[in-house]
Amino acid sequence: MAAKNTRLCVGFDPRIDLIPEVYLKEAEGDLGQTLEAVGQAITQFHRDVIDRIAPFAVCVKPQSAFFEQYGVPGLMALQDVIRYAQAADLAVILDAKRGDIDSTALAYATASIGKTQIFGKAQSVLGADAVTINPYLGTETLLPFLEVAREHGAGLFVLLKTSNPGSAEIQDAVVQSSGSQELSVSKQLAERLIRLTDTKDLDEFGYSPLGVVVGATYPELAREFRQILSNSLFLVPGIGAQGGDLSQLSAFFDTNGLGAVINSSRGVVSAADPADTQALEKIALAAQSTRDQINAAL
Amino acid sequence: MAAKNTRLCVGFDPRIDLIPEVYLKEAEGDLGQTLEAVGQAITQFHRDVIDRIAPFAVCVKPQSAFFEQYGVPGLMALQDVIRYAQAADLAVILDAKRGDIDSTALAYATASIGKTQIFGKAQSVLGADAVTINPYLGTETLLPFLEVAREHGAGLFVLLKTSNPGSAEIQDAVVQSSGSQELSVSKQLAERLIRLTDTKDLDEFGYSPLGVVVGATYPELAREFRQILSNSLFLVPGIGAQGGDLSQLSAFFDTNGLGAVINSSRGVVSAADPADTQALEKIALAAQSTRDQINAAL
Repeated sequence: MAAKNTRLCVGFDPRIDLIPEVYLKEAEGDLGQTLEAVGQAITQFHRDVIDRIAPFAVCVKPQSAFFEQYGVPGLMALQDVIRYAQAADLAVILDAKRGDIDSTALAYATASIGKTQIFGKAQSVLGADAVTINPYLGTETLLPFLEVAREHGAGLFVLLKTSNPGSAEIQDAVVQSSGSQELSVSKQLAERLIRLTDTKDLDEFGYSPLGVVVGATYPELAREFRQILSNSLFLVPGIGAQGGDLSQLSAFFDTNGLGAVINSSRGVVSAADPADTQALEKIALAAQSTRDQINAAL
Repeated sequence: MAAKNTRLCVGFDPRIDLIPEVYLKEAEGDLGQTLEAVGQAITQFHRDVIDRIAPFAVCVKPQSAFFEQYGVPGLMALQDVIRYAQAADLAVILDAKRGDIDSTALAYATASIGKTQIFGKAQSVLGADAVTINPYLGTETLLPFLEVAREHGAGLFVLLKTSNPGSAEIQDAVVQSSGSQELSVSKQLAERLIRLTDTKDLDEFGYSPLGVVVGATYPELAREFRQILSNSLFLVPGIGAQGGDLSQLSAFFDTNGLGAVINSSRGVVSAADPADTQALEKIALAAQSTRDQINAAL
């Protein structure tokens, strides 16, 4: 972030009907009307997007669901996109919102940011740099993820306050605790996350592997969380279509202008109509302009 | 359940170090020390397990995390296990605990229980009969899943009260509502789920596509939820290693002895040591005995 002066994360939510048509036409010529052709089109499109956006972004956020819906070719496309982005010096946050207990949490961590053990050797599966985590099953379920993150120098982004209106139902519920203090579920979670943060884990910039997701739609809350979670990186979705206000983004950053990445998915990757032959140029311009708007908000 | 007189769901949590060694040895002979060999071993083992447990179980519950950790061969094994179980007349509950908003929720639903649209045709990806859902992002995020479930005659199991001790942190938090009523997060969620249940959706036995997960470790809570959610199927994990008491299981069932499936994972599939050459026989006996213990608890 500091070296490239960008806080932009570009989200990849591939839907075959929203990517430039030329990719599917070419893949159909090679592989027919198959799921494999869809996988090839998605792979090639994102490689080209990565080439164009790499100067303007610090990371990319592939959304697992959209790749999963295309089966094995979708998973192969996801693996390719992750490796290709990393080779272009972009960090990869796998947006998978996984959450489970004990050995199941460990298996999710292994699949996303760790390495799997086969025949006595460790083999990377997805090898993302970070993964998003759902904490609904309790903070004990974060420990296996944290263990794998430490081992592989990777990161976690725990869903603290998501950008959608319905997030209020559970995340904003005010909890009666045994003491006199009344806290929302998300603030209570923030307190618990501090206790999980170990100073031994901090990197050279003072950040821990335990980051959080806070929606751009909640700058006031973000200001509070930024105070409490001073060692956490913030992943901030929800600008653009979801209504997050770019002018309020400073609430998410540290005083040094670091500590958060702002995600834009469709605002960048779907900047052009699928029939537009100049799609890649428009995507590059959208990335550049979003980077500039974020920097201007600091 | 009624026809086979069984309420047993057998969980599949494949770890290559826990399945009978003979499967990996044979696969290694065919495919070398590769992830593909691991995938073949997992596939063949579960096919054999399905053949043996089919008389005693009503459904199987593959845990997505354990397949995901083996990459593309793991996903292919999951696809095979799902199809093979369905051909043996077992319903398949994909335990994936997915949860996300809007089009992302729709993509997860498509991947797990729906069909993906490519070249104007609908193609099944996993094609499970039901999927587990994490509701932390709010009940609005259940709607895309419910839409796909209705379209494909599939089901959902929403995490209401998970079996692990740490589930208390968020799920048991007592919420101050605007009225005088004080409810835990999970009870408030149960109330919201009733409002999502449409009588038009009920099957011939009166059950809705909107089921819930309630841990076997909480029979008292289950009794309350069973009253409130009279049209929901309950998926009940947590017997065996996690401490759920078989003698308390009647709390989870309707008065007709239906309405819930009790999951056992390691208690059945890891009933034998990996070196045991009689593993399949022991697995079949464990399934039969667990079925009988569940029926005896009614």
